[in-house]
Amino acid sequence: MPRVYNFSAGPAVLPEEVLTECAEEMLDFNGSGMSVMEMSHRSKVYDDIIKEAEADLRKLMDIPDNYKVLFLQGGASQQFAMIPMNLMKNKKAAYIITGEWSKKAYQEGLIYGEAIPLASSEDQKFSYIPDCSDLDIPADVDYLYICENNTIYGTKYKKLPNAKGHTLIADFSSCFLSEPVDVTKYGIIFGGVQKNIGPAGVVIVIIRDDLVPDECLPGTPTMLKFKTHVKAESLYNTPPAYGIYVCGKVFKWLLKKGGLTAMKEYNEKKAAVLYDFLDESKLFKGVVRKEDRSLMNVCFNTGREDLDNEFLKEAKAAGLDNLKGYRTVGGMRASIYNAMPIAGVEKLVECMRAFEKRQNL
Amino acid sequence: MPRVYNFSAGPAVLPEEVLTECAEEMLDFNGSGMSVMEMSHRSKVYDDIIKEAEADLRKLMDIPDNYKVLFLQGGASQQFAMIPMNLMKNKKAAYIITGEWSKKAYQEGLIYGEAIPLASSEDQKFSYIPDCSDLDIPADVDYLYICENNTIYGTKYKKLPNAKGHTLIADFSSCFLSEPVDVTKYGIIFGGVQKNIGPAGVVIVIIRDDLVPDECLPGTPTMLKFKTHVKAESLYNTPPAYGIYVCGKVFKWLLKKGGLTAMKEYNEKKAAVLYDFLDESKLFKGVVRKEDRSLMNVCFNTGREDLDNEFLKEAKAAGLDNLKGYRTVGGMRASIYNAMPIAGVEKLVECMRAFEKRQNL
Repeated sequence: MPRVYNFSAGPAVLPEEVLTECAEEMLDFNGSGMSVMEMSHRSKVYDDIIKEAEADLRKLMDIPDNYKVLFLQGGASQQFAMIPMNLMKNKKAAYIITGEWSKKAYQEGLIYGEAIPLASSEDQKFSYIPDCSDLDIPADVDYLYICENNTIYGTKYKKLPNAKGHTLIADFSSCFLSEPVDVTKYGIIFGGVQKNIGPAGVVIVIIRDDLVPDECLPGTPTMLKFKTHVKAESLYNTPPAYGIYVCGKVFKWLLKKGGLTAMKEYNEKKAAVLYDFLDESKLFKGVVRKEDRSLMNVCFNTGREDLDNEFLKEAKAAGLDNLKGYRTVGGMRASIYNAMPIAGVEKLVECMRAFEKRQNL
Repeated sequence: MPRVYNFSAGPAVLPEEVLTECAEEMLDFNGSGMSVMEMSHRSKVYDDIIKEAEADLRKLMDIPDNYKVLFLQGGASQQFAMIPMNLMKNKKAAYIITGEWSKKAYQEGLIYGEAIPLASSEDQKFSYIPDCSDLDIPADVDYLYICENNTIYGTKYKKLPNAKGHTLIADFSSCFLSEPVDVTKYGIIFGGVQKNIGPAGVVIVIIRDDLVPDECLPGTPTMLKFKTHVKAESLYNTPPAYGIYVCGKVFKWLLKKGGLTAMKEYNEKKAAVLYDFLDESKLFKGVVRKEDRSLMNVCFNTGREDLDNEFLKEAKAAGLDNLKGYRTVGGMRASIYNAMPIAGVEKLVECMRAFEKRQNL
């Protein structure tokens, strides 16, 4: 079977070159006589892999020296607890709710203190990003939390909230490495890698070093203390070693492609193919406010569930897979991460155009 | 480069057949047109993978229906906290300390209540398993905790402690699937997979269903509640999907080999090659009490650090890799998990024999 165009929201498409290398190196990585899956995480050969991955990520994102880079486990969901357990000294934190994931982070925050839902777009099914230019942030909050790109709803902050001097924490899971970012504007950037970077089971945390506390909330597990992993350089216990190796390959692939500036250009061009068609289509409509559109996740529908389902079936038959929208949104969602080639989006639009034509609107 | 014999304690050698299949399926799993790394964990194709992995593990270990099987993240180290956070209702638990890992579990237990070091073999550098036939277990402990096989020191319980009706919890990381086990004797069996089963980043928890609490200790993160993962059948958030797929392949490989009874027989035969030589050698000596010897991790030395190092160098040159003992033990450690062929151990003994001969003892 040929490879499909995989529009899955995550785990998601990876660069074919990366997968090919993984396959080639499966029984013998670089003359070591073993698979990366079989290597001691304390060995020189693996140490080179993880150190190189970190160095390449630092290069890609231009991460300043006063930020630590951690490769952890448990996904973003575990960070929802780890962040308050480490940072909620005043037991107060502000959250902006723009979708399921920021809502879950907020709810987890409530376990540890006063989590304040400072702004929300739930009133319109999370179809927009609230105005965050002048939020009423209490002076004693420990941080301001956002989910920068909303996988389920297809929105993205085009302008960061005015944090008014507070520590900004952002879940980058679905926009990680999709464009250049000014790391210094954030206290913590974190995200599961399974959307735009690598296989599920690795979460990357980029944390300003003054935010790594000596003391966490009482009862914080050793594994959930940032300090534990900072001190051990992500090798406190056995890391998700193979996943980190694949991430490292994706970092190299991105560097070869010209880095994040080039990726942004490519991603904008790619998303425009789909959004431009949505703007002219009489059948398919985008579901989010134009100015908040995500470059990574494009949500749309026909307004009729039966037609949506018919289209999904047709698309799948044409080799366009995993286009079904999230259950709370319905319709279609095309996740068009870095590794999705523009040809995939062109083929999708072609399929949509043909489908629309047959409806004789 | 040909494949080496990899004696790493973990991550460790995997069956070559499994790795070959992984390589072959890397770009297209079973006609899906995508890698397992790229699949939505909510897709039918992935659901089949994880369900089949669980079914095969249940078959291999003969796991009764009233036990849940969970595929989680964070390694055994995270379980050290998760277990007390879920089970320490009376804030009291008993630990038997037989090495670094049970000691760490005990220390983590102290965060959550009265962890009692009921017995220990630290007095003799963890070179034996204490007598646990009649321990003075307080009546109100929530559980009795052991590490069944001690990776670093090379010991294993040949007889389970007399738990006197208390819930027995065992870290199986380095003996998982090495021999048949009566699951009903345990409340929880857990272990990182990266020694005997698959790539690092997956931890398997087998838990009797009445032990899954509705309420955990206050402040327990959602991700650290067993209930969360039991309810969602290990799919509360994105699981370490590729790792689970590899584990599933290893389960099938074990079933094909004749299951755990056949593995035990093979492992005993394999370990005997090395232990028999150690018993007759004038140079190399095993470091643990004979009756407590592990089938999986064999620790030995020459009694002279310079000779140990010389031997390690020679072994590596002969394609026998990762034989260096843990830093607190020194000498050599040969981890001979399920996937280590007997030919590897024979070659190791051959190398030891030749080395010994040249010392002219």
